[in-house]
Amino acid sequence: MRTSRLEAFSDGVLAIIITIMVLELKPPAGHSFSDLVHSTGIGLLTYLLSFTYVGIYWNNHHHMFHLVQRVSGGVLWANLALLFCLSLFPFTTGWVDESTFAQTPVVIYGVNMLAAAIAYFVLQTVIIRRQGADSPLRQAVGADMKGKISPVVYLTGIFSALLIDRGGHMGVGIALACYVGVAIMWIVPDRRIGRIVEDYETSD
Amino acid sequence: MRTSRLEAFSDGVLAIIITIMVLELKPPAGHSFSDLVHSTGIGLLTYLLSFTYVGIYWNNHHHMFHLVQRVSGGVLWANLALLFCLSLFPFTTGWVDESTFAQTPVVIYGVNMLAAAIAYFVLQTVIIRRQGADSPLRQAVGADMKGKISPVVYLTGIFSALLIDRGGHMGVGIALACYVGVAIMWIVPDRRIGRIVEDYETSD
Amino acid sequence: MRTSRLEAFSDGVLAIIITIMVLELKPPAGHSFSDLVHSTGIGLLTYLLSFTYVGIYWNNHHHMFHLVQRVSGGVLWANLALLFCLSLFPFTTGWVDESTFAQTPVVIYGVNMLAAAIAYFVLQTVIIRRQGADSPLRQAVGADMKGKISPVVYLTGIFSALLIDRGGHMGVGIALACYVGVAIMWIVPDRRIGRIVEDYETSD
Amino acid sequence: MRTSRLEAFSDGVLAIIITIMVLELKPPAGHSFSDLVHSTGIGLLTYLLSFTYVGIYWNNHHHMFHLVQRVSGGVLWANLALLFCLSLFPFTTGWVDESTFAQTPVVIYGVNMLAAAIAYFVLQTVIIRRQGADSPLRQAVGADMKGKISPVVYLTGIFSALLIDRGGHMGVGIALACYVGVAIMWIVPDRRIGRIVEDYETSD
Repeated sequence: MRTSRLEAFSDGVLAIIITIMVLELKPPAGHSFSDLVHSTGIGLLTYLLSFTYVGIYWNNHHHMFHLVQRVSGGVLWANLALLFCLSLFPFTTGWVDESTFAQTPVVIYGVNMLAAAIAYFVLQTVIIRRQGADSPLRQAVGADMKGKISPVVYLTGIFSALLIDRGGHMGVGIALACYVGVAIMWIVPDRRIGRIVEDYETSD
Repeated sequence: MRTSRLEAFSDGVLAIIITIMVLELKPPAGHSFSDLVHSTGIGLLTYLLSFTYVGIYWNNHHHMFHLVQRVSGGVLWANLALLFCLSLFPFTTGWVDESTFAQTPVVIYGVNMLAAAIAYFVLQTVIIRRQGADSPLRQAVGADMKGKISPVVYLTGIFSALLIDRGGHMGVGIALACYVGVAIMWIVPDRRIGRIVEDYETSD
Repeated sequence: MRTSRLEAFSDGVLAIIITIMVLELKPPAGHSFSDLVHSTGIGLLTYLLSFTYVGIYWNNHHHMFHLVQRVSGGVLWANLALLFCLSLFPFTTGWVDESTFAQTPVVIYGVNMLAAAIAYFVLQTVIIRRQGADSPLRQAVGADMKGKISPVVYLTGIFSALLIDRGGHMGVGIALACYVGVAIMWIVPDRRIGRIVEDYETSD
Repeated sequence: MRTSRLEAFSDGVLAIIITIMVLELKPPAGHSFSDLVHSTGIGLLTYLLSFTYVGIYWNNHHHMFHLVQRVSGGVLWANLALLFCLSLFPFTTGWVDESTFAQTPVVIYGVNMLAAAIAYFVLQTVIIRRQGADSPLRQAVGADMKGKISPVVYLTGIFSALLIDRGGHMGVGIALACYVGVAIMWIVPDRRIGRIVEDYETSD
């Protein structure tokens, strides 16, 4: 099986996820600038964060499948599991927004991110196993420092919100800082993978 | 007519169906973990089931069209009929969820699944007829045991919910077990089809 | 400019239009079979009709662009005008459904169909002009009987609903019969175009 | 990295943005023609304007990427920033519509357009830089008069609405005229770019 249709389907699902989140943003009831800030300010920020996350996943997915020639049933299902986790973003983002960063929604948002990271890791592992000993993806991923750091930071955020946030807002603040931090870490382009992809394509 | 645009269109429709179901999930009114479980627990489970079903159809559709080179008008319309049945999933899933597994919605959900299975079978038959005597799809499908068992299991579920469920919940329980069972049967990858596809592509 | 991205974009828009109409269908408040029939029966029928119409446009669009190699700015904009008309289907379909076939919504639904037919005709004409004297599309379209009959039937429907429907339901009934009739006329595959497309591809 | 997946993903997002705006249009409560005009008239006009804008961006995006062979991480992120700005159109359009052209929503709509124009300019600049000295896109863009005039006109509209509109409607009127004017300017096809694209493809 070639990867083209899997990529097209994933692109479609990711395009929809990234766009329907904006449907959560309802126009403010009033018509002034302060109405906009009060009723949609938080919504816009959470939308921006979730948009960035889906953008990161699309970028990484895009890079990963540049190194994949054929897909098996296992890859199809691991990919669907990743898409399922990402498809819950509009729901968890909406809850965080509506609750104005209440404790539980922030925790669940982190759990959603953690689940997506695990699904991505499983997909990567399934592909590497299938590619065998000299897997180009394994070389590209290398030590996969970002992939290993992210879940630790998510867990730090989740437990901060769970344990510290008794009465105050510090735990939730730490959690949000963790989620934003991981996004920034991933936006910085992964030069190493880019180089390996180029080598791989040139050698084609 | 080549299959590329039919595949792209079907991918688009399936990507939308699989993603908009999550729009049915409204963030809970409260902000606690028990609010989440009570108001969205069943929604998440039905969403997972329907997501899995659409994923199965996408996988099978993907495999099937690997063995198709050209499409006729009949294939286009049989494919649209399948997409129509699948496009009703968000509606029937939403009803099952909102009614907390009431009898009629569970029956209608099963009828929707049965209709999709029949539409898929019709599409498969139209393609095989068009391909003629040495149809590669016919070989790949073979005895089509799964395709023959599924409608029987759906019907078992539908009639269980209809007939047994007088006062108790056992009929609905059997129906749901049937629907989940068919999904599990299909997730197990069909090694046979995979092998024939590979042979077919190698011989290209 | 090649046609691939125009086709991909149009496929995306048509896939969304055909699928979001089902979002208009709200699960019935009650949980019985008669609740389903009373609250969603008409919705399902109008959805089926509009789904069929969008399917017909997709089929014809698909066939038409098989005969087009390059697109100009004029073709891009004529195509966008067609997509705009089709994108209003969920709105007009929703109004027909909600009003239970009231006079004005049925008229506006017909106007929407007429506008889409005119936009399709303009697109076809722009392409034929650009292709010049021996345009393959002009040959394929031929006398374009269906394309000429359809607007006449739409207008008959629109004026029946407007003029006859004073107190009774006959005008609306004729209009709906007209709309359904055009759909049936188009579902029957256009063998002639299929043959010319095949000739064209073989001669490639 | 080739551009095909970036184009497919952008097509998907733009197709969704252009189509979900119509979801903002709710069928009128009444069933008469004047209900339609009063409750949806403005909505239809703003939808048409925003549809045209997204259509213009899709057209320009389409032309631009005809001149791009490979994408870098910077291009991916600049493209996502553009898609983010465009994804806010349904929200700002909805607010303009609901408020019946109140001052602040009209200003914010202009800011949204300005942000999209800037994001497009950044994307163009990132691509030109990456293509180096003899960038085909730089040649195609040339003096980029339209690209330079548009933000000035947007700013004129924004400040007209902000400063003139005290008590009367003239400021908002000027702003809307500015927004419509830019759209008309862009619909007129850019013959120059078309010619360069053709030269470029012929020389391939």
